[in-house]
Amino acid sequence: MTLHPAVAACRRGVRAVLSGLEPGDVVLVACSGGADSLALASATVFEGHKLGLRVIGATVDHGLQAGSADQAARVVAQLAAIGVDETATVRVEVTAEGLGPEAAARQARYDVLEQLREHAGAALVLLGHTRDDQAETVLLGLARGSGGRSLAGMRRSYDRYARPLLDVTRDDTFTACQVEGLEPWHDPHNDDPGYTRVRVRRTVLPVLEEHLGPGVAAALARTADQVRDDVEALDAIAQAAYAALRGPDGTGGIPLRALHDHYRAVASRVLRLAALEAGAIDSELAHLHVRALVDLAAGEIRGEVRLPGHVTAYRADGHLRFRPTPMTS
Amino acid sequence: MTLHPAVAACRRGVRAVLSGLEPGDVVLVACSGGADSLALASATVFEGHKLGLRVIGATVDHGLQAGSADQAARVVAQLAAIGVDETATVRVEVTAEGLGPEAAARQARYDVLEQLREHAGAALVLLGHTRDDQAETVLLGLARGSGGRSLAGMRRSYDRYARPLLDVTRDDTFTACQVEGLEPWHDPHNDDPGYTRVRVRRTVLPVLEEHLGPGVAAALARTADQVRDDVEALDAIAQAAYAALRGPDGTGGIPLRALHDHYRAVASRVLRLAALEAGAIDSELAHLHVRALVDLAAGEIRGEVRLPGHVTAYRADGHLRFRPTPMTS
Repeated sequence: MTLHPAVAACRRGVRAVLSGLEPGDVVLVACSGGADSLALASATVFEGHKLGLRVIGATVDHGLQAGSADQAARVVAQLAAIGVDETATVRVEVTAEGLGPEAAARQARYDVLEQLREHAGAALVLLGHTRDDQAETVLLGLARGSGGRSLAGMRRSYDRYARPLLDVTRDDTFTACQVEGLEPWHDPHNDDPGYTRVRVRRTVLPVLEEHLGPGVAAALARTADQVRDDVEALDAIAQAAYAALRGPDGTGGIPLRALHDHYRAVASRVLRLAALEAGAIDSELAHLHVRALVDLAAGEIRGEVRLPGHVTAYRADGHLRFRPTPMTS
Repeated sequence: MTLHPAVAACRRGVRAVLSGLEPGDVVLVACSGGADSLALASATVFEGHKLGLRVIGATVDHGLQAGSADQAARVVAQLAAIGVDETATVRVEVTAEGLGPEAAARQARYDVLEQLREHAGAALVLLGHTRDDQAETVLLGLARGSGGRSLAGMRRSYDRYARPLLDVTRDDTFTACQVEGLEPWHDPHNDDPGYTRVRVRRTVLPVLEEHLGPGVAAALARTADQVRDDVEALDAIAQAAYAALRGPDGTGGIPLRALHDHYRAVASRVLRLAALEAGAIDSELAHLHVRALVDLAAGEIRGEVRLPGHVTAYRADGHLRFRPTPMTS
C-alpha cells in the first residue's frame, strides 16, 4: 500500500516542524474539526509518535453557535480515534470589545490556547492554516495597502507556535481526511458571505485563478514568504539604525545628515519608530503620515507634520524633532 | 473660473517632476492619443511653459492596425492644438522575436522614444501611466509570485524617464480631457479580452473593489511604492554584502559563517548574485532555486543544488561553491 500524496504532504510539513523536539516533549494540536486541523492532528500523531512525543489534541468551544458544545464533544471523540494521547476542551467567552467578531473569536482562541500550552508544558502548538488560508490573508492585506507588512501573511512559526500546513492546499487536507476515513466538520461560518474572508475564498480567488492563470494561490503564498523575509530584515536594520540615531535618551530628535545616509526604506522606518517613541499612535500612524515625515526630513515639504496622538514633527538645528501638538480651543 | 480638480491633479503630478529643470530644457511627452497621455500632454504644456521649457509631443505609429497612420496624424493634430512646441511621429516595426505582442510593442516603443530623446536632447521623457495602470501591474506581478520584485510595479522615474500621473486615476484623465475639450482615442486593444491586462482591468479589479472594498486600486499602488523602496534597499545592501563576501576574484565561493551573519532576505540575494556570477541564467533562476541555495547554505539540505545554466552549487571547506554541471550522456 503506497502512501497517498495528500497524506504525505501533511506529514512532510509536520515532520519539518517537529524535527527539533526531544522524546517526551509535548505537542499541542489545535483542532476545530475542520479538514485542515483533522488532517493536521492525524499527521502529528503519526510523526509525533515516531519521535516519542506526547500529542495533545485541543478543541475550543466558542459558545457562539447553538450546539457548539456537541460539536466540541464530536471533535474530542475524533481526536481520540485518531490516537492522540490526551484531549482537552476549553470553553471561551468571546467579548468583542473593540474587535470585530472574527478578530475577537481569534484572539479568544489564541489566549486560551496559550493558557493550555503553559498548563500542559507543551514545547510546540500546531495550527492548521493551509496555503489557501495564506493566499486569502495576503489578498486581505493587499486591500489594506499598508505595504510589505500587510502582504507578509502569516508566519510559519513564532514563539512556540508553528503552522506546518502552509505549503499544503486546503483540497489536500480534505483528500487526506477522506483517505484516512476522517469526517471533517463543515463550519457554517465558512459559507457566510458577510465575512470578507469568505468572499475572498469563494469569489475573489476563483476570479483571479480564472483570469491570471491557475497557481495564483501558490504565487500569493510564495510572495508572502519572500515579503516577510524582506520586512523582517528591514525592520531589524531600521531598529539598529534608530538605536544609533536617537541618542542616549531619545529626546534629541533624529540628525538629518546621518539619516540621509540610509536607504529610503530604512529612513522611513526610523522616522516611524521615532514618531512612535514621541507618542504617536501606532494603529493610526498611516503610510501617509510616514511619507510626510520622509518629505519633511528630505526638505521636500516645509513647516511641520501633525501626527495622530497629538504629536507634531518639525525641523530644527539639522534635526527632525517632535513636540506635543498644541490643543486648539 | 476655478480649476477642475482632475486637471489640477494632472498638473500637480507634472509640476513635481519638472521642478528640477532649467528654462530652455526640452521635455518629450509620449502620447498615444488616449485620455491618459492627452491629459499628460496638456498638463505638460501648461506647467512646462510656465518654467520656460520646450515641450515636444511625440506619437508612435506601431503600424499594427489598419489606419494607424491616420491615428498618428490625428494625435499630432491634437498635440499641436494643445500647444506643444513641436510634434514628432515615429514609425516602428515590431518584431516579436521571443516576446509576446504586448511586450514586443512596448519594447519597440521604448527603443524609438529613446532615439527621439537623444536626437532632441530632451532632459526628460514623460509617460502617461496612471494609478490604475500601476494597480494592474501589481496584480499581474502578484500572479507571477516572484516576491517583492514582482509587486514593485512601475518606477516613478528612472534615467531620464518619469511617470507624473502615477497618483492620478484613469477616470481623472478622462475628466481632464472632457473639461479641456480633448477627444481621447479609444484603443480597440483596450477591449480585447485576449490580453491579460484587459481582463485585469475589466474583471479582476472590479471584483476586488466589490468584495474587498473601494480603494483597492489605490491600495495596490501604495503597496507598490513601499515594496519598491524595500526591494531597492535590500538589493543594494545585498550587492554590498556580496562584494565583501565574494573575495577579490569571485571564484572562492561564499564563506558560510560570514553569510550567516546576514538576514535571510540579504543572504538569499547574495546567493542569487553568486549563482548569476557563476553562470546561472537570470530569467530561469526561480524562487525555488534560490530557496534551495539558502537551505544548502544553512545545512538544511545536503548534497548539491543544480541550477539552470548548467551550474551546480555545493558546500566545501565552509564555503558555498559553484561548478559546471556535468553533462549527462
